[in-house]
Amino acid sequence: MVTDIYQVQGMTCGHCVQAVSAEVGALAGVDEVQVDLASGQVTVTSAEPLDPAAVRAAVDEAGYDLVDR
Amino acid sequence: MVTDIYQVQGMTCGHCVQAVSAEVGALAGVDEVQVDLASGQVTVTSAEPLDPAAVRAAVDEAGYDLVDR
Repeated sequence: MVTDIYQVQGMTCGHCVQAVSAEVGALAGVDEVQVDLASGQVTVTSAEPLDPAAVRAAVDEAGYDLVDR
Repeated sequence: MVTDIYQVQGMTCGHCVQAVSAEVGALAGVDEVQVDLASGQVTVTSAEPLDPAAVRAAVDEAGYDLVDR
C-alpha cells in the first residue's frame, strides 16, 4: 500500500469534495481517497504508486487544480 | 408570469448553484430559476405566485438557507 498526499486548490464545499473524491477514486489502483476541505489536502491510498500526471488529470477533470509540491 | 427574487446563503461554487436550481426548479409551477453565485440572488419565474414555505423547503433540501426578507 502506498499513501500519497496531494494539495488541491479551489474546493469550497462538500460537493467539491465529492467531485474530487469521485474522479481520483476512479483511477486504477486507488483504494481510498480522503479529502480535507479546510486544508485542501487529498490523501490517496493505492496498491501501487500512482502516476502523478494521472492524479493531476483526475483533479483537473473534477474542475480543480493540483498544487505543485 | 410572476418573478420573485430570493436571497440564499451558503452557496460557494457551481455545484451549489446546480443543487439550488434543481430543487427550486422542481417546484410545481416554476418555469425558470436563475442563480447568481456571487450575490446569492435566486430569481424564480413561475406561472402563479409560489408558496414561500415551499421555496424555503426546496432551498433547505438543497442544503442552503433562505435569508428572510
